[in-house]
Amino acid sequence: MLEHVRIVLINTSHSGNIGSAARAMKTMGLSDLVLVDPVDFDPQAPSDVSVAMASGAQDVLQGARVVATFEEAIEDVAVVMGASARSRHLPWPLMHPRKATAKALEVLPSGQKVALVFGRERTGLTNDELAMCQIHIHIPTNEDYASLNVASAVQVLAYEMRMGILAHQGELDANYEGNWGVSWDNELANQGEINGFMDHLEQTLVDIEFLDPTNPKQLMPRLRRLFQRAMPDKVEINILRGILKMIGRSQHK
Amino acid sequence: MLEHVRIVLINTSHSGNIGSAARAMKTMGLSDLVLVDPVDFDPQAPSDVSVAMASGAQDVLQGARVVATFEEAIEDVAVVMGASARSRHLPWPLMHPRKATAKALEVLPSGQKVALVFGRERTGLTNDELAMCQIHIHIPTNEDYASLNVASAVQVLAYEMRMGILAHQGELDANYEGNWGVSWDNELANQGEINGFMDHLEQTLVDIEFLDPTNPKQLMPRLRRLFQRAMPDKVEINILRGILKMIGRSQHK
Repeated sequence: MLEHVRIVLINTSHSGNIGSAARAMKTMGLSDLVLVDPVDFDPQAPSDVSVAMASGAQDVLQGARVVATFEEAIEDVAVVMGASARSRHLPWPLMHPRKATAKALEVLPSGQKVALVFGRERTGLTNDELAMCQIHIHIPTNEDYASLNVASAVQVLAYEMRMGILAHQGELDANYEGNWGVSWDNELANQGEINGFMDHLEQTLVDIEFLDPTNPKQLMPRLRRLFQRAMPDKVEINILRGILKMIGRSQHK
Repeated sequence: MLEHVRIVLINTSHSGNIGSAARAMKTMGLSDLVLVDPVDFDPQAPSDVSVAMASGAQDVLQGARVVATFEEAIEDVAVVMGASARSRHLPWPLMHPRKATAKALEVLPSGQKVALVFGRERTGLTNDELAMCQIHIHIPTNEDYASLNVASAVQVLAYEMRMGILAHQGELDANYEGNWGVSWDNELANQGEINGFMDHLEQTLVDIEFLDPTNPKQLMPRLRRLFQRAMPDKVEINILRGILKMIGRSQHK
């Protein structure tokens, strides 16, 4: 679905920002970039600064389509989402990026396109351009300092879109698998092994006179909670028991 | 809670990146920046490029604390989260940013500090540094192109943290209020007004012979669904009825 998310940059002044936006897109797996009337950009011969800022995302940069009007940029798009500052003369339904992503996921699965539209560096989108967007996205920035660079705004919305799509496809949490996923190197200890270790630990603490069996307080419950929470693997339990064994030997010398 | 989220940058080479990171932080309301042994940065006299990249976030830049070791940077921190690439020699529980934010929200409300730690531009955090982090955060980048600039990574994680905190404080959705929040300029039309308009519309469509009452098909249900979905306000309904009235007059000329 990432291939159906288009980034549209309108009237960008600095080609370096176009390069940075291309890089931000590619890190999140997006590739469809359309530039509406850029002030200083030629995809056939991108400027040095745009290539430098793209830093390995030149394919996105060189694949960019340059068009004269916003209408051309969104002709084949089902849902147009414009990045907007908070207050406008005529109020318009504003969504935060997560909600807008959920909205995009209502159409992306059917193969329809969604466009994320970003305006000029200083002035953003005009009211006429915003009127052509079905959804206005507002990134909930610091009210005292909303100075988000255009490439940073692309980065945030592309990230949010990627997170939403991965989650939708069941690939987000699956790739992390809780804490001990497929990439964990050892099998987790089972509860028998943990209990064996806890008994060994308790006996050792008695032996070294750290734990008074007649007045145990909350020591063992606290230690158990600590080790349960850590969910040790089998190798770690073996290491811990090895340590206890050595403590025991040093006691009986 | 935003004031308890610290950004730690280790061994950053380019002071421009420190400036960009400061800007990214401030857009999301963060201000606590600690620099561990930066290659080329003096908070008393920040370089021109760092100030230029900070672009109005000089207060964050000048408030940055420079320390010699990672240990000093996190001494007073409860939970240390390191930004990590995917594969490491010794596997470690990896969380995506949203999950890590949920984890941070388990401690932030009590006033404890959370640190987000970012490594060198090219090589990231060392294994020794990652071993000092309780949580490793991985931003789920494009597997073929994970080249996220350090300031972009700060931007993404700071954004995620801000979203989580706003949601936790009940300020995220509240500030957007669905589609027609407190900032909407007119009261929504009530169902009586909508029904009055729909009747007027239906009569008009019959008058202009667009709707055949003996074979109405799904026309009116479709039009009703469209207007229900749009949830027009009172002014919009008045405009629509004004249009219908004018169509009626032009019919009877």
